[in-house]
Amino acid sequence: MTSSRKVVELFYDVVSPYSWLGFEVLCRYRSVWNIDLKLKPAYLGGVMHASGNRPPGLVHNKFLYMTKDLRRLSEYFGVPLSPPANVVEAMFEKGSLTAMRFVTAVAEKETNGDMMVEKVSRELWKRIWRTDQDITKDASLTEAGLKAGLLPTEVEALLHLAKSQPIKDKLKSVTQEAIDYNAFGFPLTVCHVNGKAEPFFGSDRFELMAHCIGEKWVGPQPTKPIAKI
Amino acid sequence: MTSSRKVVELFYDVVSPYSWLGFEVLCRYRSVWNIDLKLKPAYLGGVMHASGNRPPGLVHNKFLYMTKDLRRLSEYFGVPLSPPANVVEAMFEKGSLTAMRFVTAVAEKETNGDMMVEKVSRELWKRIWRTDQDITKDASLTEAGLKAGLLPTEVEALLHLAKSQPIKDKLKSVTQEAIDYNAFGFPLTVCHVNGKAEPFFGSDRFELMAHCIGEKWVGPQPTKPIAKI
Repeated sequence: MTSSRKVVELFYDVVSPYSWLGFEVLCRYRSVWNIDLKLKPAYLGGVMHASGNRPPGLVHNKFLYMTKDLRRLSEYFGVPLSPPANVVEAMFEKGSLTAMRFVTAVAEKETNGDMMVEKVSRELWKRIWRTDQDITKDASLTEAGLKAGLLPTEVEALLHLAKSQPIKDKLKSVTQEAIDYNAFGFPLTVCHVNGKAEPFFGSDRFELMAHCIGEKWVGPQPTKPIAKI
Repeated sequence: MTSSRKVVELFYDVVSPYSWLGFEVLCRYRSVWNIDLKLKPAYLGGVMHASGNRPPGLVHNKFLYMTKDLRRLSEYFGVPLSPPANVVEAMFEKGSLTAMRFVTAVAEKETNGDMMVEKVSRELWKRIWRTDQDITKDASLTEAGLKAGLLPTEVEALLHLAKSQPIKDKLKSVTQEAIDYNAFGFPLTVCHVNGKAEPFFGSDRFELMAHCIGEKWVGPQPTKPIAKI
């Protein structure tokens, strides 16, 4: 069976709020555009280290702007988010390594599509970027897993698997795939068009992406009835 | 006489290619949206220094991405641009201080709107970001000025004026206005809505900007007949 659907890969990390916006938009568009969306949970820390990039928030004015930008985009995209009270602690001190290993374990065990990867990722984003909750402890990952619809026994097995070498290696290897596309941050969306990989950084190139894959961009909420302006 | 048109200020520097994209799009939209577009030629070097931001191109993967991103955006926006052969020399060693003082002098002398500021800015962008020509020497600024439609005597007077203290101070003060909006780069577009200033950084927030000012975004070439997809 062949498919004319274009493969679109989304590299993301739940520590990144712009990744959440991109993730929700692409999840909506997978039933609108003729694409085969592949979720690629990866580790932002690894990409920043490999590329020598610094977190944008280190520049004070950028931090102020991003706070405002995220508030506006969150409303416009219909993805309610709210920064954790201590952004530095949540993003850089606690970080997302264990969380992304957990998502990688979910991906490893999911054989039919990536519905559970989608749900678990969303629950983790809700914790760090909506309700300001931890995403590093086993108890936190368990709560997210259960909310996503996993059984307690499944969560237990996944927590165990997430600590194994093969899963650590898998996360490294997916992160390396992003680095091989010259990633310097997330989200990174890679559209495969006529045998060529077209990478797009950030959550502000959807219109260009649509143009590139021969589809139409109708805003971040394509399946919602058009609101009155 | 009162006007219901929303004031939109565009802070830019001709050294910045993303500023050129934003400039052309907003110049097109000023006859589409109910806005009063105010061109604010400023000095990017001053903003980078004040904010402590570093040029994005210093991160190698970002540089590679931006080259690709600019090529794609240039085609999609209908603004043919091509990086100078030696980007570092053109952007950072030669820079844009004299060029932006010249544009500031043009702005100072223009009493009725900013048509000449628009034309001269465009000619300077064409030099640095299309034909890889100098924008630092008097002869270069003269060529740009003449192409924009200024008379030789006018250009001569403007070159003289551009070196005066009041013009140096004017450029500093417009740059400071951008810094006061927490700028960390250009373009910076500031929309004045219901007494509130909404700043947008970059050339990828037009859809959000439209939403914010109650207008409709129909792509970067609003006055061009819609092409077949």
